[in-house]
Amino acid sequence: MAFESKIRPIYWDNGVSKMLDQTIIPYEYKYVEIKTGDEMFDAIKTMIVRGAPAIGIAGAQGVVLYAIEGSKKYSDINEFKNWLIQKADYMATSRPTAVNLMWACDEQKKVIKNSASDIDGLIKELTDKAVEIELDDIERCKKIGDYGAEVVPKGATILTHCNAGALATGGYGTALGVVRSAYAKDNTIQVFADETRPRQQGARLTTFELAKDGIPVTLITDGMCSYFMNKGMIDMVVVGADRIAANGDAANKIGTYTVAIAAKYHNVPFYVAAPLSTIDISIKSGKEIPIEERSHEEVTHINGKRICAEGINIINPGFDVTPHELISGIITEKGILRPDYNKSIAELFK
Amino acid sequence: MAFESKIRPIYWDNGVSKMLDQTIIPYEYKYVEIKTGDEMFDAIKTMIVRGAPAIGIAGAQGVVLYAIEGSKKYSDINEFKNWLIQKADYMATSRPTAVNLMWACDEQKKVIKNSASDIDGLIKELTDKAVEIELDDIERCKKIGDYGAEVVPKGATILTHCNAGALATGGYGTALGVVRSAYAKDNTIQVFADETRPRQQGARLTTFELAKDGIPVTLITDGMCSYFMNKGMIDMVVVGADRIAANGDAANKIGTYTVAIAAKYHNVPFYVAAPLSTIDISIKSGKEIPIEERSHEEVTHINGKRICAEGINIINPGFDVTPHELISGIITEKGILRPDYNKSIAELFK
Repeated sequence: MAFESKIRPIYWDNGVSKMLDQTIIPYEYKYVEIKTGDEMFDAIKTMIVRGAPAIGIAGAQGVVLYAIEGSKKYSDINEFKNWLIQKADYMATSRPTAVNLMWACDEQKKVIKNSASDIDGLIKELTDKAVEIELDDIERCKKIGDYGAEVVPKGATILTHCNAGALATGGYGTALGVVRSAYAKDNTIQVFADETRPRQQGARLTTFELAKDGIPVTLITDGMCSYFMNKGMIDMVVVGADRIAANGDAANKIGTYTVAIAAKYHNVPFYVAAPLSTIDISIKSGKEIPIEERSHEEVTHINGKRICAEGINIINPGFDVTPHELISGIITEKGILRPDYNKSIAELFK
Repeated sequence: MAFESKIRPIYWDNGVSKMLDQTIIPYEYKYVEIKTGDEMFDAIKTMIVRGAPAIGIAGAQGVVLYAIEGSKKYSDINEFKNWLIQKADYMATSRPTAVNLMWACDEQKKVIKNSASDIDGLIKELTDKAVEIELDDIERCKKIGDYGAEVVPKGATILTHCNAGALATGGYGTALGVVRSAYAKDNTIQVFADETRPRQQGARLTTFELAKDGIPVTLITDGMCSYFMNKGMIDMVVVGADRIAANGDAANKIGTYTVAIAAKYHNVPFYVAAPLSTIDISIKSGKEIPIEERSHEEVTHINGKRICAEGINIINPGFDVTPHELISGIITEKGILRPDYNKSIAELFK
């Protein structure tokens, strides 16, 4: 049973990409127009758009924007295609950890390579693919949500980390898709949202989108999860993922691994919710997932104000890897994968 | 071998208490003068002074301040004593979790009850006791530091949570006392400091005092500890405590328990450093330690600015309890207690 979310973070509108500026939520709720490929690259890099599935959509749209620009420079279809493939490869490097971005750029590269059309026809094909990726994502999230809702106990309190919500996807969410589908069946469930320092996606985005959709949410700081698990106040954890290896190891926002360890210690089920495009069967384990090192200012400053002494060191890994042995299940649009993930994932990609 | 710290958070100066205002560090480094008992009560409650040993010192000074006020109202020594004992009991309620505060107020009550002096003589005795508690605390911390330094591996990286430093004590620190003594022996050690949301004592205070004393410190967010432990970058954890039960369960700043679970998962030794005045043998286990519920604004606002959506729930426990089975040792001024803590603590208090 699908829940109707009010949130639509990114959509294609007649030659431009419109996206909610997620760097200013919850202070402002404002769409920006992205009109060039380079603007899209920067929007992904600076996290105006973020969340693995959403940046996949953004990447696909970015390739269309480059195509529109390229059509003004090239008249030869082969020169155009060669240039555009380079741009698609470049777009895929705007962030390194989430595989959905690479996947979406690859989808566009397939369109480019397989197209028999002229330049205008190819732009149309790329536009159709970008819109398809966007709309498919919403449908995929609803399926993820519905599968996930089956394992949510009645009246459950669900802990989540970061924002794997409508804002991170085409508009329904992966982890929060599970929440939305569960809430549609049982409006006594509720969410505990980790703040998710350094960038506070939990505080800024998850509380915002759940409050907007009328789903009860309690904000906690990142260190508190164990306290509430110990008190029996958390029934399950559901998080998103940026890349999942063939053995089930899952990269997600920094801090996820700590929550997973706490969940294991308290025997609280820990689920990862993600579309199949997040699974990278080309890598055997999480050790092969590149971890983005982000700006030190994310740690040292909040809302532009320094929160610590001068003259200190900072390390700011954007993600961590939760090893498969801490994951109770991976909720996908094709159902819930269970351990042994090497087998269940291989089965699905056969 | 003692390290000379530049930090002195609270001292008695000719009838007034001078304390560093810890709510404005690292932005300003400013002493405030506390001249009445009620001002002291508020200074403890609003955390101008904080840290279990430091608020013990503050409580003892607060009783002196009440005594000075009372001497202007009472001429009968017995009426004065009765009134002052009520004030000492009241002072002990300014914060509920740290037992050092109750211990220090009790010490002053003993002085009051046992005194054979007149009012002026009693004020002198109370002043001497407050100064003794302050100076003893520094000596105690140095002993804690020296015992703790013995278990710090060469070149170790020590993770700490919150601020159990010079700022939390008379001026040397418990957990950071261990760091200071270890650094005096081996200047290749370094510290990783958890930010410690909601009040960011790690970011604001621990980085500040270590930078001021020239000890290398890296600030991380609270969710990151497991990431660095997994990479083998953390050799040990040392934290303070606000109250330790007879079985070794230790209450400390919220988030400590999560770090302890992560340390256990990665086989990283986890130590609690605290003076004996932190141990409350009247309670059998951590279940009996009252956990202070603090203002919701601490979670929802940073530096006066809201960081989350409106219309959401907040729970803000100030402390959590790390169960004894996660604690490798309790470092005291009498040596390092090891499990079974029921036995080793009872032995010490015999």
